[in-house]
Formats: sequence, structure tokens, C-alpha cells
Amino acid sequence: MKLVTIVCEAILEDRVVELLRQMGAHGHTAFPVHGSGNQGDRSADISELGNVQLQVLVKPAIAEALLTRLQTELFAAFAMVAYESDVRVLRPDKF
Amino acid sequence: MKLVTIVCEAILEDRVVELLRQMGAHGHTAFPVHGSGNQGDRSADISELGNVQLQVLVKPAIAEALLTRLQTELFAAFAMVAYESDVRVLRPDKF
Amino acid sequence: MKLVTIVCEAILEDRVVELLRQMGAHGHTAFPVHGSGNQGDRSADISELGNVQLQVLVKPAIAEALLTRLQTELFAAFAMVAYESDVRVLRPDKF
Repeated sequence: MKLVTIVCEAILEDRVVELLRQMGAHGHTAFPVHGSGNQGDRSADISELGNVQLQVLVKPAIAEALLTRLQTELFAAFAMVAYESDVRVLRPDKF
Repeated sequence: MKLVTIVCEAILEDRVVELLRQMGAHGHTAFPVHGSGNQGDRSADISELGNVQLQVLVKPAIAEALLTRLQTELFAAFAMVAYESDVRVLRPDKF
Repeated sequence: MKLVTIVCEAILEDRVVELLRQMGAHGHTAFPVHGSGNQGDRSADISELGNVQLQVLVKPAIAEALLTRLQTELFAAFAMVAYESDVRVLRPDKF
């Protein structure tokens, strides 16, 4: 299985979650993060202006399709980072 | 080394941490997350009802045993997700 | 690409971020964590005394150099954990 991690502006969270649902992802986790990127520092204190990190477990083919859609639909317009890694999941049939 | 990640209801955190200690894990990190799963949306605003993500670094054999115990002792009764990945750790002798 | 994760005391965050900048990292994320380690339990409620988890995406050679500097400059004096894992990043040319 693949763990796909997406870091984006908090105001984009609903849009990314909707994309995950469209791709058939069975659940995700999200949490606020602060840090810095090409757009400069981001504070988590003002949550509307902060960043959020989303993580979702999906099959490799879904991960590939998800990353492609993120790239074509959102990356051009927003400050985002996305990456995937290999994980071994308990009860993978759930995903 | 293996990084084992467990996402569960926050009220289960103490029980999972106790399990980690029994398995000989030398420390862990935890942080609140929100998101959605088979049990529906979870808000981190009401921390008692929220989810928590725990992460622990352990040797492969411990990771295997830990995942087995999670599956047999907790997964049947609770909404949980657990997975492991390979990591290279500084000072692995500490773990 | 490598994802380098560093868990340290929150009061060290600025120092680690400065180290990341010196190494040429193009952004990072950070978030408060609680948990336990060789130094005992850490609560995230008192943020000055809590721990923080930092994550940065870098090329393998930078990851290696970063881990070496963490080991030689900070690990002897502070309670820290650091590890790296392999990830596939969208738009890796950004990093």
C-alpha cells in the first residue's frame, strides 16, 4: 500500500478531501502544521492562514492517479507539497 | 528499523501506549488528528472524541509482534488503522 | 528523495530550522507532539516544555549531511530522535 502525504493551505483542506473521496479513499487523517516553504513562513496560530498535512492510505494505482490529479488540478495555482511512500498496512482489505 | 504508525480514538491512547511499553518500545510520539474513516468524520475540536496518531520506532521483530497484538487485542473492537514503514534511524542502538 | 524526520524539544525548533536552512532545505513542516522517551513523559499542554516533530524533504546527499550534522552538533547535548525514509515527491525539482 501507499501512504500519500499532502501539505497544503488549510483553506484547501475540504477541496483535497473531496478529491480523496472521488478517488475512492476510505478515510484520511489531517492535522495542522506550521513551517516554511517557497511562499515563506506559515504560522499554525492563525489556523485560517496555516497549513494542514493530510495523509491517506491507498492502493498504488490510486496513489498514482491521485498524485496526477493533484498536479494537474491544484499544484499550478496553490502552494502544495505531495509525496508517497511504501507502507505495510494491517487489514489492507479495508482500503 | 521500522516506524509503526497507529491511528485510533484518543480514549484508546493510554491503552496503546501501555501495549508499546509491554513490547519494549523506548519512547513514542503522539499528536491529535482529525479526518474520516469507516466510522465517519472525526473532529479534533472535541479532543475526547477525536483521534490520535501514535508513532514508534522499533526493531522489525518488535514491529511484527506489535502489529499482531494490535490486531488480536484491539482491532476487532475499535476503529483503528496501523501500518509500518522502513526508516534509517540515527543512533539505532537506543531503540 | 528523502523525508527526514526530527523529534526534539520545542525550544530547539529554531535551532534545527536554522540548520535546515544552512543545508539548503527548501521548506519544512513542524507540529507539536507529546509522548515519552528516555527522558520520560512529555506533555504537549505546556508548549515550552513539549516536543516538536519537524519534517523536511531533501535529496539523499543532503539528508546524509543533515543527519551527520545533527549527530555531531546536537545529539550529544539534547534529547532528540532523527530518521530518514524514501519518498517519491511530486515536482522534485522544487527541492
